[in-house]
Amino acid sequence: MGVKKMLISNPLLEAFKQTNYQISGHGKRNIQVLQKVLMDLNGEIDSDHYGNGAIIENFQMKLANFLGKEAAVFFPSGTMAQQIALRIWCDEKGSNKVAYHPLSHLEIHEEDGLKELHHIEPVLLADKSRVIELDDVVNMEGDISCLLLELPQREIGGQLPDYETLEQISNFCRSKGIKLHLDGARLFEILPYYQKSAAEICALFDSVYVSFYKGIGGIAGAILAGDKDFTEKSKVWKRRHGGDLISLYPYIISSDFYFDERVHKMDRYFEDAKELASFFNQCNTISTLPLEPVSNMFHVHINVAKEQLEPLLIAIYQETGIGITSYLTEINKDSCYFEVSIGDQYAKIPKEDLKKVFKSLNELLGVRPPLL
Amino acid sequence: MGVKKMLISNPLLEAFKQTNYQISGHGKRNIQVLQKVLMDLNGEIDSDHYGNGAIIENFQMKLANFLGKEAAVFFPSGTMAQQIALRIWCDEKGSNKVAYHPLSHLEIHEEDGLKELHHIEPVLLADKSRVIELDDVVNMEGDISCLLLELPQREIGGQLPDYETLEQISNFCRSKGIKLHLDGARLFEILPYYQKSAAEICALFDSVYVSFYKGIGGIAGAILAGDKDFTEKSKVWKRRHGGDLISLYPYIISSDFYFDERVHKMDRYFEDAKELASFFNQCNTISTLPLEPVSNMFHVHINVAKEQLEPLLIAIYQETGIGITSYLTEINKDSCYFEVSIGDQYAKIPKEDLKKVFKSLNELLGVRPPLL
Repeated sequence: MGVKKMLISNPLLEAFKQTNYQISGHGKRNIQVLQKVLMDLNGEIDSDHYGNGAIIENFQMKLANFLGKEAAVFFPSGTMAQQIALRIWCDEKGSNKVAYHPLSHLEIHEEDGLKELHHIEPVLLADKSRVIELDDVVNMEGDISCLLLELPQREIGGQLPDYETLEQISNFCRSKGIKLHLDGARLFEILPYYQKSAAEICALFDSVYVSFYKGIGGIAGAILAGDKDFTEKSKVWKRRHGGDLISLYPYIISSDFYFDERVHKMDRYFEDAKELASFFNQCNTISTLPLEPVSNMFHVHINVAKEQLEPLLIAIYQETGIGITSYLTEINKDSCYFEVSIGDQYAKIPKEDLKKVFKSLNELLGVRPPLL
Repeated sequence: MGVKKMLISNPLLEAFKQTNYQISGHGKRNIQVLQKVLMDLNGEIDSDHYGNGAIIENFQMKLANFLGKEAAVFFPSGTMAQQIALRIWCDEKGSNKVAYHPLSHLEIHEEDGLKELHHIEPVLLADKSRVIELDDVVNMEGDISCLLLELPQREIGGQLPDYETLEQISNFCRSKGIKLHLDGARLFEILPYYQKSAAEICALFDSVYVSFYKGIGGIAGAILAGDKDFTEKSKVWKRRHGGDLISLYPYIISSDFYFDERVHKMDRYFEDAKELASFFNQCNTISTLPLEPVSNMFHVHINVAKEQLEPLLIAIYQETGIGITSYLTEINKDSCYFEVSIGDQYAKIPKEDLKKVFKSLNELLGVRPPLL
């Protein structure tokens, strides 16, 4: 009964699930993702124990080195890691004001944890449609302890500032005694665009968070990196938050496994994203944001009402066996969008089949009465 | 070099690790514990997704039923679950005062998360050497939102109040509008002593936390249960704490697996604990706390200086291949103690070998000059 109800209530998702290929991601998030990691590991490897033990310490050191930071701490989530980073910088400066983008994860996806648990007040920089620029930072008001930059800015299609802007913002913050924190949930994904190493980018920041289930495709987990004094404080807060689990190894071993498997594939995902975006941009009524991707992700905006588009997409999925998106988000009554994030799956789609998808999409959108 | 240093710095732990049998626990906490769970599962089972999906919802429902509560929420840790429970009850009453034992986990193991994150002020009841009794509760001062009882009281050997006392405390709290929360990290372990079901005990409480890596022997994870209004609020706070992970399934499937494997073995562990405690109590200078265990756990107090006892234990481990404890905690210069928590391992020790351990222990302690 439950399944039947779902079929009726979300036909796009159900049609998507029936496809043979999907353009986004690395594949299904099922328990095989974990089974694959464990298969070849020696069962005698000891669990971590409340943050101690080789299995956690080695991975933390590996990521500290990769990010060019003195030390790193593994966290169950970025939500926890980033609130803690901002809290440490606020306590150090004695001001509870931080600055970030109005569409920051902390502002829209965390049930106001930063405010409710830490009583930190954010100052919102820039408007929702664009990234934070140097002017926004120079003109910040109030005694800001820390500025958080999210690279790429996920909620607006993964846009990025120029690298020069990053350097200028970093210099400005250092000159004013403002800490700079990197929300690098998708840091690995932007290295090909900037043509920089992770360590080069992180050198501009005082603290850095990276995630292991976005481009890396792990199960969950995050690393928070910075100098040793900072990371030691973060361990105390990790315990306070309830994140200092007796065993975090299921997330650590999977993060490590998929980091090794995919961190070097980011160039490929980036090239694929640019190719795919160009296919979308050749379609009637469709444009991507950004027009040319700067990472493995972008948003697809369609000037068609969500309820008009859904049956067209379902028809394409059924005809081609290729899933474009499992959902559509309404912008207004005449337009909607969805997110694309390229992983291993895109390259598996036969190019001929992909061309059919866009031919069908263009025809279905084109033959409709003018929509604008 | 690191290993060599460890050998020198912690010879008792190293000797313990070399033993063939250990009296406490279910076995080594290594990644085989997780491999075993995954081996026979269908890889196509979907991950949970931010608290949704059959894999988490089914387990939550199963535990809600077992605990006799309307609803249950899976948490990565008890630290997170319990702070949140107390916060919800404080917000509901509009008072930031709670009451608990001076050796509560919240008071001594959580880096003051309750105070630092939630600004909740605990009132400490009873003294450190005994459990909370009805008089302590009746004489509480201040506008207490919630009383937390830990059953069994782990830091004093796992002591328990009478069941009648529990009922009286519950009645008193209900009559005064004080919420009663159960720290049931080891709830399953006390059911044989009280001869009650989990649901019967939980009916005395408004909210309940249980753990899956103590007697159950899972990897990590906790359940918080109560009425639906309470658990729905707890989900919001779980997200704020950074505990609403995209995937918690590694902990859920292992909790479920080991719950099914061990929840019905608690009688056996309890009987084993009483037997083993009697062996200890027959030794010179040794007594257990409690003298007769009321669960699978107890503490072993030895009136011998820690540094005198360590080489004796090491000699016994090497002679018998049986490990009694990996550590000793100093009480004062003449005495020390350690904790025993019975799991699957105890029953595997050949009884003849166990007798040799206690014969040796008694001889080694007995032939020493009088120690008191």
